[in-house]
Amino acid sequence: MDVQVILDTIWVLVTGMLVFFMNLGFASVESGFARAKNSVNILSKNFIVFAVSSLGFLFLGWGLMFGDGNGFIGQKGLFMVTGADNSPAVGEAYSGVYSAISWTGVPLWAKFFFQLVFCGTAATIVSGAVAERIKYISFIIFSFVLTLAIYPIVGHWIWGGGFLAKLGMLDFAGGTVVHSIGGWAALAGVLVLGPRFGKYSKDGKINPIPGHNMSLATIGAFVLWLGWFGFNPGSTMAANPTSISHILVTTNTAGIIAVLTSTVTAWLVIGKPDLGMSINGLLAGLVAITPSCAYVSVPSSLLIGGVAGVLVVLFVMMFDRLKLDDPVGALAVHLANGVLGTLAVGLFAQNGIGGTASPDGLFFGGGLGLFKAQAIGVVVVAAFVFCSSLVVWLVLKHTIGIRVSLKEEIEGLDIGEHGNRGYPEFAMHKTSYSVYARDVGATTDVNAPKGGR
Amino acid sequence: MDVQVILDTIWVLVTGMLVFFMNLGFASVESGFARAKNSVNILSKNFIVFAVSSLGFLFLGWGLMFGDGNGFIGQKGLFMVTGADNSPAVGEAYSGVYSAISWTGVPLWAKFFFQLVFCGTAATIVSGAVAERIKYISFIIFSFVLTLAIYPIVGHWIWGGGFLAKLGMLDFAGGTVVHSIGGWAALAGVLVLGPRFGKYSKDGKINPIPGHNMSLATIGAFVLWLGWFGFNPGSTMAANPTSISHILVTTNTAGIIAVLTSTVTAWLVIGKPDLGMSINGLLAGLVAITPSCAYVSVPSSLLIGGVAGVLVVLFVMMFDRLKLDDPVGALAVHLANGVLGTLAVGLFAQNGIGGTASPDGLFFGGGLGLFKAQAIGVVVVAAFVFCSSLVVWLVLKHTIGIRVSLKEEIEGLDIGEHGNRGYPEFAMHKTSYSVYARDVGATTDVNAPKGGR
Amino acid sequence: MDVQVILDTIWVLVTGMLVFFMNLGFASVESGFARAKNSVNILSKNFIVFAVSSLGFLFLGWGLMFGDGNGFIGQKGLFMVTGADNSPAVGEAYSGVYSAISWTGVPLWAKFFFQLVFCGTAATIVSGAVAERIKYISFIIFSFVLTLAIYPIVGHWIWGGGFLAKLGMLDFAGGTVVHSIGGWAALAGVLVLGPRFGKYSKDGKINPIPGHNMSLATIGAFVLWLGWFGFNPGSTMAANPTSISHILVTTNTAGIIAVLTSTVTAWLVIGKPDLGMSINGLLAGLVAITPSCAYVSVPSSLLIGGVAGVLVVLFVMMFDRLKLDDPVGALAVHLANGVLGTLAVGLFAQNGIGGTASPDGLFFGGGLGLFKAQAIGVVVVAAFVFCSSLVVWLVLKHTIGIRVSLKEEIEGLDIGEHGNRGYPEFAMHKTSYSVYARDVGATTDVNAPKGGR
Repeated sequence: MDVQVILDTIWVLVTGMLVFFMNLGFASVESGFARAKNSVNILSKNFIVFAVSSLGFLFLGWGLMFGDGNGFIGQKGLFMVTGADNSPAVGEAYSGVYSAISWTGVPLWAKFFFQLVFCGTAATIVSGAVAERIKYISFIIFSFVLTLAIYPIVGHWIWGGGFLAKLGMLDFAGGTVVHSIGGWAALAGVLVLGPRFGKYSKDGKINPIPGHNMSLATIGAFVLWLGWFGFNPGSTMAANPTSISHILVTTNTAGIIAVLTSTVTAWLVIGKPDLGMSINGLLAGLVAITPSCAYVSVPSSLLIGGVAGVLVVLFVMMFDRLKLDDPVGALAVHLANGVLGTLAVGLFAQNGIGGTASPDGLFFGGGLGLFKAQAIGVVVVAAFVFCSSLVVWLVLKHTIGIRVSLKEEIEGLDIGEHGNRGYPEFAMHKTSYSVYARDVGATTDVNAPKGGR
Repeated sequence: MDVQVILDTIWVLVTGMLVFFMNLGFASVESGFARAKNSVNILSKNFIVFAVSSLGFLFLGWGLMFGDGNGFIGQKGLFMVTGADNSPAVGEAYSGVYSAISWTGVPLWAKFFFQLVFCGTAATIVSGAVAERIKYISFIIFSFVLTLAIYPIVGHWIWGGGFLAKLGMLDFAGGTVVHSIGGWAALAGVLVLGPRFGKYSKDGKINPIPGHNMSLATIGAFVLWLGWFGFNPGSTMAANPTSISHILVTTNTAGIIAVLTSTVTAWLVIGKPDLGMSINGLLAGLVAITPSCAYVSVPSSLLIGGVAGVLVVLFVMMFDRLKLDDPVGALAVHLANGVLGTLAVGLFAQNGIGGTASPDGLFFGGGLGLFKAQAIGVVVVAAFVFCSSLVVWLVLKHTIGIRVSLKEEIEGLDIGEHGNRGYPEFAMHKTSYSVYARDVGATTDVNAPKGGR
Repeated sequence: MDVQVILDTIWVLVTGMLVFFMNLGFASVESGFARAKNSVNILSKNFIVFAVSSLGFLFLGWGLMFGDGNGFIGQKGLFMVTGADNSPAVGEAYSGVYSAISWTGVPLWAKFFFQLVFCGTAATIVSGAVAERIKYISFIIFSFVLTLAIYPIVGHWIWGGGFLAKLGMLDFAGGTVVHSIGGWAALAGVLVLGPRFGKYSKDGKINPIPGHNMSLATIGAFVLWLGWFGFNPGSTMAANPTSISHILVTTNTAGIIAVLTSTVTAWLVIGKPDLGMSINGLLAGLVAITPSCAYVSVPSSLLIGGVAGVLVVLFVMMFDRLKLDDPVGALAVHLANGVLGTLAVGLFAQNGIGGTASPDGLFFGGGLGLFKAQAIGVVVVAAFVFCSSLVVWLVLKHTIGIRVSLKEEIEGLDIGEHGNRGYPEFAMHKTSYSVYARDVGATTDVNAPKGGR
């Protein structure tokens, strides 16, 4: 066995595990940013979504994405990853049916696992944006369709040797493939679902709905940060020391500067250094650097992350003014920065994929041709994912329904969907929406224990 | 230094660290599934149990398990891992006293650490089943005996070249060695301890006692999931790319399908997709695939995990009807699936340990001879671990006692055992057992602050 | 590319990521040990401190620490890590400007990242000791100065080829460089800040202020434990199988025995096995073994950790009697054990850095010469860090101020500093300080929701 294959496999599996761990990060951030009465539902969604994604990607997704085919779709080795392996690891390199990913020498199941955790990430991005009012079963079905077909098809275009790859579009670790796909799917869901009860008053006022547990949200933020150290440096899918070290530092640098600029922006704009904004700042910086992390210099990563940190605060406020109710800021983080980060490749890229040299030029690179390819990619992916997701959401809406009843929404999805509560022994404040709750026949103290006394 | 030794050592240490991290997973799941008034006690048990295990395994356990000896017990290099190393890493391979584990080339301390974290896992399985009524000191002493002697002796039979290994029994990553041992020891403890106060009414009613913190339990579940990616793929104790990639995928596949089947089963049987059942479903699938993960195909792992997910829901209900009070479902998860998973090796195994080829046959393998060896192993281990544990629990019961007073149990073990509370500033609901509490002279609001006002 | 470089890089990056993850550990332990009303502030401090550290260390710190220079300070390649790389990885070994760290062959950015996470750890140690009364902006500025200048200058003396290194001082993984630096900086801060309101009564009574969330603190403890498996074994900065395995076991052994001895000591001294003391015991054992982990035998690590576990309980009580108010015990853990662990090198060290042989002698090593070098190092670092930190704290105090108003302190820093609350839906007990709160015009129920009813 070639030593390089072993080295690459260790790197790919360990970083893939870190990306898997981001499921905990998303579960914690999303649940922490939402209300206690919906915490079990959000945790359940984030818990089952990776199971659903794994099944969808195993059954069909992998084959659609990486199977040999035409520019739009994979057509060989479709079901259950049963096509012939073309990893050097098995000794018969390049004779299998997954040619688009034969550039990495690791065994087939290592490739599958690493790509699976990326697919799972795209699906879990959706869950935050649609939280606190979506039906559990509808979210499960949407996630299955997304990971069985929508994500793999777009993935084929960019990472599976499809037409966007041939156009020259670059997306190193998935700013478009993962974050924008998740973001456009979420936007369609938010539009079809509508805002949470009580979020926007009739007089146009925007009512803040604070998260119930900032400890939980912060745990999630650190776990996502760690996970990104797998996400970006692992996307080499090979243990090239100079590349992986460089990518780790551009990734972290974009993240930390975005923490600082988002905190300062929040301080200036809303008057206080809000922790939620600092967390979304981190995530924005990490998303923004994702597509370019291997191609840009460390000073460029400071610039990219710094801008992302400022913009995410403004985007959160903009989406709120557009009455696109996104409880966790997923649109501002993943959609906006996935798009901007993909475009940034065209402005800053200095180095090709997998190169051993570290980009050393101070700031700018890319070029008009590259920028055009990036822009075309962004637009095409937006159109396809938004439209196909919209169709799925609308079909679900008009069949089994996608939104819980108003009574259930007010009482909390934990009871209605799961017959469970997140913190059954803790006494809760009666909150302002309990006044309105009476109108729809809900109990006013939604957290009171059923039995007892 | 041979490059393969370095590769293997990196793999063994990194995966060993992930298995260590499962201590956080168990602490979070067990504490989250129990009541707030016992949270400090459960966290304390899970925190100290790895310290106790490390001491027991260092002092004597390692030597009993891996020291050269007869078919029943190790006899050389017994105390403090002071026998001669026979790792290829030290240049004098196969001349030491730990021959049974000389098949892996990593240095002695790497072998020790990896085996230690497995031993610690067996001990921590017990803690959940005996939670909410056991004395802290008695749990510590039991864990010490388990990791000093009971676990290593059984481990010697299967992984230390003992009589079950010679019989042909296969247990790749510890379905019997870790999970069943922990499970049988827990069952003995549950029987000797009896159920928690208030769990079973005199009229035969089973009273559900919901966990106090589902966020905490979910954090734990994801951490255990990650930890299992060390547990199973790390058990190669060598960085064989094809094997470790294959094992990672069979492991994850069994886990995710069990999440789905357990959720569906709960939905059908108890009417709602209960998050606690989804979590136990995951763990059941992961336990069930543990002994066979290296030997079976990915389709087989779907089958094994799928069945485990259905059965764990039924087992949880069965143990409850048998009035075996297990607050976290450890018996249904680790005991039942440890046994069934070990038997499944005899039905599905297609490939020997450490082989480079990935099992590709669709489903079935094994054979009657193998199945018999597995069944004999299950029965022998059950008899030894259950009986020896029972003796230890009974000796503890009749000397220092194993159960806290009824008053302490009602007020919570946090105050009684540790003089501490988990959430001293949070107001708690008075729960139904406070009515009974008066009868034994306990205060009714167990969470009221002592000072203040 | 040399295979050893790839192996070393994988090891350094993975262990560096684990050290980064300690930021979550510190955030959780510190927040869990403090009161709910300050939880957002503590989480915010721990979240932003790694961003601030990364910026300070990138801008100047790295160059001051590892740039070629004189015995006191680095002078080449100062700003933004723009000096020439002298890693073997780039093919022109030893011709760059960071000679002091050319002993490891990994690429420059891998070296930078690994050293950065250590720098960040020193800064985050401070945050716990000054918690619950420090201004957010002042903490940020102090952390920036610490990581831009104070930490790197001392680091240069010991790890950058400076005068203490030339004297023969040994500090394998940063008992002095990280833990004592953090500890002395924290001590200066605690002195300038003064104790929290209500901690010490006028009659001399010491009022315990229990932590609000022991689940959170325990999560943090396990994460730090895992992180230390990166901290110490990673400090080889090379994948030497025998060394990294040995260091992993000495590290864990010191930690686990300290859990046991601290628990027993607390049981004897304060009457109960307090979980907070067990956690601080773990950390004390891990700090104490940090400087010597590569040089001492496993039996020695039992001795070093065992003593640390006893002493940390006594040190916590001592600092309290000295009215040095340290909400999380950071001085007892990091300062006291950083100093003692550094001295212990002079008593127990049997083996030079990077050696392949495992120290096998039973207990003692070192020697008078080494002990003197260690003692001189301890004293010089203490004087410099304490004095320079004191100056920074005093300048901050007399310019922008370092302490929040009494009213804000009583109401909680979450509202005052961040306009946020950690758990806005949870009802809280009125605590004893609410009586005093009226005197300064604070509301008495600091956790009541502003709107609602």
